[in-house]
Amino acid sequence: MTSKLDATAVEATQNCNVALVGFGTVGSSVARILCERSNTHLRLTHVLNRNVARKKVDWLPSSVQWTEKIGDILSSDVEIVVEVMGGLQPTEDWIRRALASGKSVVTANKQLIAHSGPELIALARRMKQQIEFGASVAGGVPVISGLRDGLAGDELFKIRGILNGTCNYILSQIESTGIPFATALREAQKLGFAEADPTEDIDGLDARAKLAILARVGLHCNVKPASIVARSISAIDSIDFEYANQLGCTIRQISWAELRAALKADLKGEHLFAAVQPALVELSSPLARVEGSQNLVMATGKYGGETVFGGHGAGGHPTAVAVVSDILAIAHAKQSGMSYAGQPLEKTPTITADFTTKHYLRFLVKDRPGIIASLATILSQCGINIDAVVQKPGCPKSHLPFLITLEECKASLVEQALQQINSLDFLVQPCLHLPIL
Amino acid sequence: MTSKLDATAVEATQNCNVALVGFGTVGSSVARILCERSNTHLRLTHVLNRNVARKKVDWLPSSVQWTEKIGDILSSDVEIVVEVMGGLQPTEDWIRRALASGKSVVTANKQLIAHSGPELIALARRMKQQIEFGASVAGGVPVISGLRDGLAGDELFKIRGILNGTCNYILSQIESTGIPFATALREAQKLGFAEADPTEDIDGLDARAKLAILARVGLHCNVKPASIVARSISAIDSIDFEYANQLGCTIRQISWAELRAALKADLKGEHLFAAVQPALVELSSPLARVEGSQNLVMATGKYGGETVFGGHGAGGHPTAVAVVSDILAIAHAKQSGMSYAGQPLEKTPTITADFTTKHYLRFLVKDRPGIIASLATILSQCGINIDAVVQKPGCPKSHLPFLITLEECKASLVEQALQQINSLDFLVQPCLHLPIL
Repeated sequence: MTSKLDATAVEATQNCNVALVGFGTVGSSVARILCERSNTHLRLTHVLNRNVARKKVDWLPSSVQWTEKIGDILSSDVEIVVEVMGGLQPTEDWIRRALASGKSVVTANKQLIAHSGPELIALARRMKQQIEFGASVAGGVPVISGLRDGLAGDELFKIRGILNGTCNYILSQIESTGIPFATALREAQKLGFAEADPTEDIDGLDARAKLAILARVGLHCNVKPASIVARSISAIDSIDFEYANQLGCTIRQISWAELRAALKADLKGEHLFAAVQPALVELSSPLARVEGSQNLVMATGKYGGETVFGGHGAGGHPTAVAVVSDILAIAHAKQSGMSYAGQPLEKTPTITADFTTKHYLRFLVKDRPGIIASLATILSQCGINIDAVVQKPGCPKSHLPFLITLEECKASLVEQALQQINSLDFLVQPCLHLPIL
Repeated sequence: MTSKLDATAVEATQNCNVALVGFGTVGSSVARILCERSNTHLRLTHVLNRNVARKKVDWLPSSVQWTEKIGDILSSDVEIVVEVMGGLQPTEDWIRRALASGKSVVTANKQLIAHSGPELIALARRMKQQIEFGASVAGGVPVISGLRDGLAGDELFKIRGILNGTCNYILSQIESTGIPFATALREAQKLGFAEADPTEDIDGLDARAKLAILARVGLHCNVKPASIVARSISAIDSIDFEYANQLGCTIRQISWAELRAALKADLKGEHLFAAVQPALVELSSPLARVEGSQNLVMATGKYGGETVFGGHGAGGHPTAVAVVSDILAIAHAKQSGMSYAGQPLEKTPTITADFTTKHYLRFLVKDRPGIIASLATILSQCGINIDAVVQKPGCPKSHLPFLITLEECKASLVEQALQQINSLDFLVQPCLHLPIL
């Protein structure tokens, strides 16, 4: 019924030609791994980079064609184009042209996938090609394939994660050394953990692009990154870690997306609660234990409960592992004549950041009698219940920090109260408001 | 160049008929998930169980055929046979017949896959079918696909994990409540966390079957479970947690497989260090933080470093998630005409449990002068260096526990010394020897 020939026929692999677009840190790591793998049928045939002459290395086979022209790749017999160049343009244009000319694509470009992923996937599908982007979220941690394939049998409804290593490194440093935010940022920049312009990281724009991708892959929601609220970590001070610790918590930049059916009459259809923001997390949570520039994603499903994926979220080699895993998956599918099915984004929920949680309000005031009374009055007028008031002893009266925690209520209610509170004259700076998750 | 027809053609899915062999906890969870999924083309057509009449439920479509005969399934147009019945026979025979009759197979059967996985995979390959077994290790945690596909781009060389929820629950209970092992076991049995005959779990046989599967999938090593040393957790006492804590550690049942090239002249070829055993792990390690019946796997690669997968390692619903994810993967591949490539087990390393680590020796003695001197003499004659001696105050002289930690050396050297030590007349019980990882 079967013969040995059948078995070997499956293993007899044709070479699969691969082009690398971009030869920076990730690109050269990808080339290195492809070179060092022995039992592979992947063949690196092209490397594209600007000023490619200065990029040439001697450890790649001499058969590799070094080029600055995407046309050289598009007109070749390359089957998989690997984009590790970054940026939105000309990258998107090049990827579209690669797909349109019958090549599959692997990209590590989170901003591009966050912005144009659904359109690029649709184009790939029409061309019976694949586009894979496992490296676009959490670097070497296989969370995209984990959510899409490994947990395909579940109905996921919640994704929480630490998706930005820069923020996690800075917050960890403030926590462990007590230095101010600005110092921690400068040190991170010196060590290469933060960019010269750190806005994308600090203000949560990087993480929200990744969260949008995860919400699509894991929750099948059609989400644009701009529709997700992102709040900066720049107002976090070391005093906040002291207070958080008193509450059995620490502070992390948390990316959170949670799908909920409307439970109340005022919500119609499905709602996606989504935000990237600094938040208090319990010390016992895996999110609290993420150290330095590590990444972690927790996915919660209706049947399987909570599943955790963690590891190196950045760096040339870990990111390259994700890229090469994608290349291997496409090569395997191509060899078997498999076309890409993808997953439809069947849900278009209303997106809101109006989480119902406990809240942390940290004030910095010029002390005088009646402060608590004024704050309590405003909060109670807004229908908000105070849980606790905590004040660290021994602070100067002119810059007195203290903490009010609130019982569970909607974030929007707190923001409404803070509009009144922040105009009070005893405040030295606006109140810092963090959710307690 | 493309048309809308192309795009819809890919999505137009034919029904894929699925048969369930076994309708216990996992089987009925699988049926439940298949029923509740809306946008799926999977159709449950058969349920097989012994005495099937008493298993019938009213929430499955009336079109489902309930049967006790595997022949009914083998002769049908079922494309995927899902085995969640357990046991080695007749299960293996049935799976072989299913594959031989051109059906793909999903199984949650770790013992079967540990014992006959490579042969079943080879048979599936010859028949151009697939056999998937994601539920066989760590229940709902997608670690099989994570190692095989998600980290395919890396060269993994080390896998460590907590793979048995029963042992982890018992050890956690001894740690948190100070009860003796036997009591913790009885309580676990009462709560349904341990079997009436707990040998498979307690003695590490369950975990080593899972470790053998992970070593094949992640390290491409041809490993038989019987070649992996398994040591029982039954000698662990609450005093050991006290001592472990003093060393900044806790105690967990650790499954460990590590591939090393021969570094010294006396080792030829590749060696796989593999064992399932109770061990001291640092409190800061993710392994130390695994609570109750959770599972965790850490995979370490040459390029990507350490990646962690964690979640519910058992239970009907989490296991069913893994089963359904496998069904979806096969259905997707079948639809695309993809044949199974699998991964060759190209490595047949020498397997050893002779780890080089620090060691924990806990003694229970009738106190008298000269005990430490006798022990130190034997250890030094074996070329072993003592790191520290720790004794808890206030213990009875007739049952005095104390601890000796050793500097890094091979486990075999320590076992050699213990052969002499365990015949010394002041010992109330044999010395407990644990590696410090």
